[in-house]
Amino acid sequence: MLKEQDLGNWRKTHGLSEINPAIGDQQVVIMGWVSAVRDHGNIQFIILRDITGEAQITAKKSEVGEQLFAMIKEVKEHSSIAVKGKIRPQERAPNGAEVIPSELAVFSIARKAAPFVTQGKTSTVGIDTRLDLRAVDLRRSYLQCVFRIRQTLLNSIREFMSRQQFIEVSTPKMIATATEGGAALFPIFYYNREAFLAQSPQLYKEQLTMAFENVFEIGPIFRAEPSRTNRHLSEATSIDIEKAFADYNDVMSILERLIVNIVDSIKDRNKPDLAFMELSMPALELPFPKYTYSDLIDKLQEAGEKIQWGDDISPQALKSLSDQRMNGFYFIVDWPTSAKPFYVKPSAADEKISESFDLMFGPLEMSSGSTRINRKDQLVERMQKQGLKSDSFDYHLRVFDYGMPPHAGFGMGLERLLMALTKLDNIRDATFYPRDIDRLAP
Amino acid sequence: MLKEQDLGNWRKTHGLSEINPAIGDQQVVIMGWVSAVRDHGNIQFIILRDITGEAQITAKKSEVGEQLFAMIKEVKEHSSIAVKGKIRPQERAPNGAEVIPSELAVFSIARKAAPFVTQGKTSTVGIDTRLDLRAVDLRRSYLQCVFRIRQTLLNSIREFMSRQQFIEVSTPKMIATATEGGAALFPIFYYNREAFLAQSPQLYKEQLTMAFENVFEIGPIFRAEPSRTNRHLSEATSIDIEKAFADYNDVMSILERLIVNIVDSIKDRNKPDLAFMELSMPALELPFPKYTYSDLIDKLQEAGEKIQWGDDISPQALKSLSDQRMNGFYFIVDWPTSAKPFYVKPSAADEKISESFDLMFGPLEMSSGSTRINRKDQLVERMQKQGLKSDSFDYHLRVFDYGMPPHAGFGMGLERLLMALTKLDNIRDATFYPRDIDRLAP
Repeated sequence: MLKEQDLGNWRKTHGLSEINPAIGDQQVVIMGWVSAVRDHGNIQFIILRDITGEAQITAKKSEVGEQLFAMIKEVKEHSSIAVKGKIRPQERAPNGAEVIPSELAVFSIARKAAPFVTQGKTSTVGIDTRLDLRAVDLRRSYLQCVFRIRQTLLNSIREFMSRQQFIEVSTPKMIATATEGGAALFPIFYYNREAFLAQSPQLYKEQLTMAFENVFEIGPIFRAEPSRTNRHLSEATSIDIEKAFADYNDVMSILERLIVNIVDSIKDRNKPDLAFMELSMPALELPFPKYTYSDLIDKLQEAGEKIQWGDDISPQALKSLSDQRMNGFYFIVDWPTSAKPFYVKPSAADEKISESFDLMFGPLEMSSGSTRINRKDQLVERMQKQGLKSDSFDYHLRVFDYGMPPHAGFGMGLERLLMALTKLDNIRDATFYPRDIDRLAP
Repeated sequence: MLKEQDLGNWRKTHGLSEINPAIGDQQVVIMGWVSAVRDHGNIQFIILRDITGEAQITAKKSEVGEQLFAMIKEVKEHSSIAVKGKIRPQERAPNGAEVIPSELAVFSIARKAAPFVTQGKTSTVGIDTRLDLRAVDLRRSYLQCVFRIRQTLLNSIREFMSRQQFIEVSTPKMIATATEGGAALFPIFYYNREAFLAQSPQLYKEQLTMAFENVFEIGPIFRAEPSRTNRHLSEATSIDIEKAFADYNDVMSILERLIVNIVDSIKDRNKPDLAFMELSMPALELPFPKYTYSDLIDKLQEAGEKIQWGDDISPQALKSLSDQRMNGFYFIVDWPTSAKPFYVKPSAADEKISESFDLMFGPLEMSSGSTRINRKDQLVERMQKQGLKSDSFDYHLRVFDYGMPPHAGFGMGLERLLMALTKLDNIRDATFYPRDIDRLAP
């Protein structure tokens, strides 16, 4: 019988991707979880995985001895083990090497068979079965690629924003007042009063342009989204930027260069992942196409859609337009003022239109941005028009008395972008532990 | 009368730190907020600040003309303005240059005098007055230095963890079950049921070692801290790491090298800030001193403290020991198992003692870590001993059936560390918008 043991003095000498014939005669200690076992009678194969890759352990009964062979025969998929051994060249194994074991440590025996396999691109079971056992599901090679790409995405955003002299900030997630009206907020019991979870860092990031000029934040946002779709989460990661002395054209230019930077970084840093996923990044050209909202409404009406100026544009409607350029990234600009939150600046030339944009990828919205109002009286007027009580924004409005610069910014959903770039069917797979109306665990 | 105008076609050509005599005869456009004005009769000086630094605008009536001079005379501190002009060498001005204005744009007039000054190291008013107007308060030079150091801290942590092959993760902030008992949690109304804000990513980061081996997260945590102190926040930023195939000694080694990396990065990247703050970083030597909990209890008892084995060690008690090495960073290791949460691994040699540590800086706790239990039965037993219902941890316990590796990790408070390194009196100044029992706004 296999026995579990503590880590004790066992320490890894090599990551699995480092296991290759160049190691020669040196003894290695490798650790990971068992992703596959193959029983060929008197030969046992174990495929071991760690964060760096995988390696093959080959145990011939005649070579490793009966006792060790019997132990290895008992090792099950998903178990957590360590192996001491030597390297032998083996063309058919990962990195052209196999490990001939001389000692085995079993840290944790898998006691159940997982209800899904972790190899291959697609899963044979429904997403709920996978999410119920998410930590095991995340061992799937495809998801490992997705989350390595997520890491590139995060790093390349921070690198790009730092080069543009943006300072990283953190704004409070527990807030007293709803930012954009009261819809879709999670209430909290904050000591002895009511508060809410922030659905965006909007007002805080605007304020911070007063002191830090250019700010960005990558952090959680919370929306009590009542619908069940494949593209909404109740808890998501938002990439937010805000820039002083800029308008919406300036930040659109930053956003499209940011996207190019992200895509280039993924192509550069995730080659093996893209190869495994059989995935190519979209070809991008600057500047991204721009459509005005009004032009799109005309086109949609021509295409026979029942849509009026002032309506929102649904993904469904966009699919009805057969414009090649709309398969990739493009902007929809100059939205109706009435369709946008109170802090969005109306155009000086025509009050009905606002200095605003959405960044789209195909029919999916990736990001929303605008020039913001930087005058207190105009802001109060817009609040009142939208039925908001300016009193409850006192802490926000008061800083406008101290030289709020002209500013513009955008927010972009990290999971939306990751989903689009990695062609996931469901946004839930773009986050570690998704939250939605039905799911609060694990 | 000064009139406010829109940004329009005004665009910055130079950051203020770039304003120097080498620019020569070229026309510049600079923007920022007014940090000081000086009225010398027929000469007006404006000190302008932006994120890069500051520059002096010098307006002589005879040189700039009466109309522009009259406008400049009206400009008040904190206003947001732009100036078009030429450079002239001026030894007494920042970077050896002054700007002779030819055109002025006022984007936002300061309508009130701030109740505090933004120059200098200390503030003359209480922290609540400053926090009520935090965006203006954050213009203080000292705080700008603090938050530039914060940025270095964040970047150097991410760089270090990436080099150690840790993957950055995000765990859910809305959770169904209290991690460490029910104390100090904020309840949320999650659709139609009760949930809580996460006080730590503990169980999630442990699970994620199954799939990603080495993970880290820098994100918000929430504690309904009932006390009013200068070192607690209700919403803080936690730096969390968790590593498979490691014990508490391994992660202590990572933590002390991380601290050295942070301090070296600050010394390297924040020279002007350290100079302005008259601040030096602590001298560090590896390894950090280690004291066992039991030895410290003995020492404290010798020093006359009323303390028993099993008690927590207060900052007050630590101050009573006159040990030079305790002024800097040091570890307290091997805490009583009863004093630690259920997931902390008891020592194999003595169950009463756990494989745990606190990283201290002087009398302040910076970080807490341990080897974790990776066996389901042992975990359930520890839950029951601490009066927790293992049923409510079903979603956590079930993944232990699939090969949970041995693992260890720590959590560290970003604001605590920033406070300690920059010698702030109050942790509230180490965060942009602090939250505590009394404060939920701005």
